[in-house]
Amino acid sequence: MTQHRMVDAKKTLGNYGQAVNDYLETCLADRGIMDRLRESMEYSLLAGGKRLRPALCLAWAAHFGLDFNVTMPFACSIELIHTYSLIHDDLPAMDDDDLRRGKPSNHRQFDEATAILAGDALLTEAFGLMLNTRGVAAERVLQAAAVVAYGAGANGMVGGQMLDMALTGKAGVELAELQRMHSLKTGALITASCLSGAILAGATDDDLANVIAYGKHVGMAFQIVDDILDVVGDEKELGKPVGSDEGQGKNTYPSLVGLDESRDMAVQVIAEACLAIRGYSGTQADFLRSLAEYIVQRAN
Amino acid sequence: MTQHRMVDAKKTLGNYGQAVNDYLETCLADRGIMDRLRESMEYSLLAGGKRLRPALCLAWAAHFGLDFNVTMPFACSIELIHTYSLIHDDLPAMDDDDLRRGKPSNHRQFDEATAILAGDALLTEAFGLMLNTRGVAAERVLQAAAVVAYGAGANGMVGGQMLDMALTGKAGVELAELQRMHSLKTGALITASCLSGAILAGATDDDLANVIAYGKHVGMAFQIVDDILDVVGDEKELGKPVGSDEGQGKNTYPSLVGLDESRDMAVQVIAEACLAIRGYSGTQADFLRSLAEYIVQRAN
Repeated sequence: MTQHRMVDAKKTLGNYGQAVNDYLETCLADRGIMDRLRESMEYSLLAGGKRLRPALCLAWAAHFGLDFNVTMPFACSIELIHTYSLIHDDLPAMDDDDLRRGKPSNHRQFDEATAILAGDALLTEAFGLMLNTRGVAAERVLQAAAVVAYGAGANGMVGGQMLDMALTGKAGVELAELQRMHSLKTGALITASCLSGAILAGATDDDLANVIAYGKHVGMAFQIVDDILDVVGDEKELGKPVGSDEGQGKNTYPSLVGLDESRDMAVQVIAEACLAIRGYSGTQADFLRSLAEYIVQRAN
Repeated sequence: MTQHRMVDAKKTLGNYGQAVNDYLETCLADRGIMDRLRESMEYSLLAGGKRLRPALCLAWAAHFGLDFNVTMPFACSIELIHTYSLIHDDLPAMDDDDLRRGKPSNHRQFDEATAILAGDALLTEAFGLMLNTRGVAAERVLQAAAVVAYGAGANGMVGGQMLDMALTGKAGVELAELQRMHSLKTGALITASCLSGAILAGATDDDLANVIAYGKHVGMAFQIVDDILDVVGDEKELGKPVGSDEGQGKNTYPSLVGLDESRDMAVQVIAEACLAIRGYSGTQADFLRSLAEYIVQRAN
C-alpha cells in the first residue's frame, strides 16, 4: 500500500463527490416543492460529506460498463436516503444531537416537525429518483431499487437503528451484537450501494456475489474506523466533539475490544474486501481497492 | 342514488378491505424483522380502517383487466404509506395525538423513537412491496411506483402535511389555501392509488386522464366529509373525540364555509368524479361510482 495510491483514492473519491454534489444541488430545485420543506431537505443534503455511497454505486456501475451519467440519479438517490437517516437519527427522541457536520442539526436549524417531514420527503423522493432512471432496462431498475429498499428498511438500516437504540447504554454487550447492529445500520446501505450499481450495469450473479462480499467488508471497516475516529480523530474534521459516542453511552469497537484490536480488525476486514474483488482489473477496480485501503488509513 | 346501491358500495368496499387485511396480516411476518419494530409497524397497520386507497387501486386495475391477485401487493403497499403518515402525523412534534382509531397512538403505545422508525420502515417496505410486483411488465411497475412516490412525497402528501402545520392556528385562511393543502395531504395519495392501479393494468393515456379526474374529486370529497364528520359524527365510529379539529386549531371546510355549504360542496365534487368516468361500464365502474356516492352519504 503506497502513499501514492492513497492520494489517488482520496482524489478520485473527491472527483466523484464533486460530481455528486453538482447533481444534488439541482435535483430538488424547480420542482415546485414549498420553500421551507425544500430548504430543510437541502440544508442537510448539501451539508457536505464524503458521498461514499453514491461513489461506490457509480464506481461499480462503471466497472461493469454503465455510463456515469446514466447511473448518477440512482447513485444520488442513495445519498438522499443516507441524509434522511441522519436527520431522523439526530432527533430528540433518538440520539438528540445538536450538531451534525459542524452545523446545527436539522431540527435545531428548523424545528422538529420540519425535520421529521424533511426526512420523510427525502426518503420518498429517493425512490422517485431511482424509479425515473433512464437508459437501463426496466427490470434492472426494479431489481436495483428493490435492493436499496431492502438495505434501507426494516431488515437493514432502520432495523439497525432500532438495535442501536436498544444497545445504547446497555452493559455487557457482546462484539457479535455490535457487529450485527452495524451490519444493519451502516453495512446494509453501503452494500446496497455497491450491489445496485452492479445490477444496473447488468453484472452476472457470480459478479454480484463478489460485489456483496466487498460491500459488506467495506461497510464493516467503515464503521470500525468511524468508532476509532470518535476516540482519536480531529474534532474539526469530524464536525462533532471527540468522545461523543462515549458521552451518549454508545457501545463501540474501541470500548469493547480496545483501540489496537479495533485497528487490527479494520485492516483484516479490508483485506477481505480486496480479496473478494481480486479477480477484477481496470481503473474502477483499482479505485475500489484503494478506496477500501483509504478508509482504514484514515484511522491511523 | 338509491339506498340499495349504497349498501352495495359499503359491502364491496368491505370485501376489498377484508382481502387487503388478509394480505397485510401476513406481509411483514416471517421476514426476520426484529420483534419490537415489527410489532410497532403491525400495531398501526392492522388497526383497522376502511382500506380505501388499496380498494381504489384494486378496483381501477381490475376495471382495466388486471388480475386481483397480481395487484394486491402493490395496492397494499399504499396502505403501508398511509399508515406511516398517520404514525408520523400523531407524533408530539406534529399533531400530538394520543388516540388513533380508538387506541393509543403508536408513540403512546410504544415510544417516540420506535414510532418514528416504524413509520420510516413502513414507507421503505412499501416501495419494496411495489418493486417486487410480479406478473406486470417492468415498465408499468416503474411508472406506477413513480406515481405513488410523487403522490406521497414533497409535491404530494408530505408537502401537504407541511402546509397543514403552517395553516393550523392561522387566522384568515382562504378556502383556496385549505383546498390546496388537502389536495396535497389527502388528495395526492388517493389520486395515486387510482392512477397506479390503472397504469399497472395498461390503461391508455385518455383513460388515465379520466382516472386522475375521478381520483382528485373523490379525494377532495373524502376530506370535506372527514371535516364534516369531525363536527357531527359519532365519536365511537370516528375513534376520536368529535370536535378534535377545532380543539387543535385546524381550519376545516365547516369552519370556513359552514356545514351546509360543506355538504353542498361534497355533493358537487362527487358529481364531478362520476362525470369523469361516465363512459365506463361494468362491475368495477359501477362500484367506483357508488363508492364515490357512499363517501358523501356518510356525511348525512
